[in-house]
Amino acid sequence: MEYLANTVVELIEELSKLPGIGRKTAQRLAFHIINKSEDEAMKLANAIVKAKRNTKYCSICCNLTDVDPCTSCASKKRDRSVICVVEDPRDVMAIERTRDYNGMYHVLHGNISPMDGIGPEEIKVKELIMRLNDPEVEEIILATNPTIEGEATAMYISKLVKPMGIKVTRLAYGIPVGGDLEYADEVTLSKAIEGRREI
Amino acid sequence: MEYLANTVVELIEELSKLPGIGRKTAQRLAFHIINKSEDEAMKLANAIVKAKRNTKYCSICCNLTDVDPCTSCASKKRDRSVICVVEDPRDVMAIERTRDYNGMYHVLHGNISPMDGIGPEEIKVKELIMRLNDPEVEEIILATNPTIEGEATAMYISKLVKPMGIKVTRLAYGIPVGGDLEYADEVTLSKAIEGRREI
Repeated sequence: MEYLANTVVELIEELSKLPGIGRKTAQRLAFHIINKSEDEAMKLANAIVKAKRNTKYCSICCNLTDVDPCTSCASKKRDRSVICVVEDPRDVMAIERTRDYNGMYHVLHGNISPMDGIGPEEIKVKELIMRLNDPEVEEIILATNPTIEGEATAMYISKLVKPMGIKVTRLAYGIPVGGDLEYADEVTLSKAIEGRREI
Repeated sequence: MEYLANTVVELIEELSKLPGIGRKTAQRLAFHIINKSEDEAMKLANAIVKAKRNTKYCSICCNLTDVDPCTSCASKKRDRSVICVVEDPRDVMAIERTRDYNGMYHVLHGNISPMDGIGPEEIKVKELIMRLNDPEVEEIILATNPTIEGEATAMYISKLVKPMGIKVTRLAYGIPVGGDLEYADEVTLSKAIEGRREI
């Protein structure tokens, strides 16, 4: 691409390293950024620098935060007797969107996956166990993903935690609201039958 | 999004201002950037700053460049008797990819579109006409897009340039290579028939 400014080529290259951004999209984004006002482009660049430099793990729940402890852990309004264990900061966002949960969180940053060489030491399990020394904690909700790895992670943690006399729960399996029985896979459907509740 | 670091929220917001990047994609990109090494994140931020600060229009062909005149205009290997007029820097890249053209370029940065209030003064027509004072120029190829606006722009420029005794050509219309006659629209097909060539 000799006939394109080097600065633009470089930007396209950097953008196309992002996940899901191919060459064409990177080009479109690069030209968009160049056509922005300098002020707007700087805002984006600064947001990247700031996010990278100032975002760290909360020393309590391991969620991403710019203040330590994070607002969730520091909040006096939240219920400290329950800890919801998730794989990823995005899962915290998903649960927060329900507006149904007011307990604490713990972010594992991954799941146990022996196939990929990820054992319990690679994720934030140790940090979770440390938190359980607090007598306030009565229940942990294992909200890892309903995948093989998420399941294995939940099993592993539950085996560690149960002997400590803490209640361990797992998110309910079942048919998604607004779904269609016809299209539900058999495993989900049999879990839904197994977990049926009286109304 | 109280339980997400402000730095992350800000990055997501900036990213979602990019074209074709929705909230979900912006989130995915933001988390990816945060999980990158500091070095890599800085490279992206610097590429944005550099591209914005150091990219300007070439004083001759108006293409984006970081050196003035651009490599294309400065090149001694290119044919200075032909100027290919395009709407956008991306069109230069598209034509360069054919490896079939070795002349000069002129980037209009838009097309004439009275509906959007864009007249000839808003695009780089004046700059093109100035270049035509050079007696070396023998032909201009109008390679604006085959849209109503692109067509209008081509017509406008051709009316200005023809009286100057310079040959004005337009890219050929026809069926795309590898296409299927069955799916070609009627206008394209009738243009293809009209422009048929002896073999």
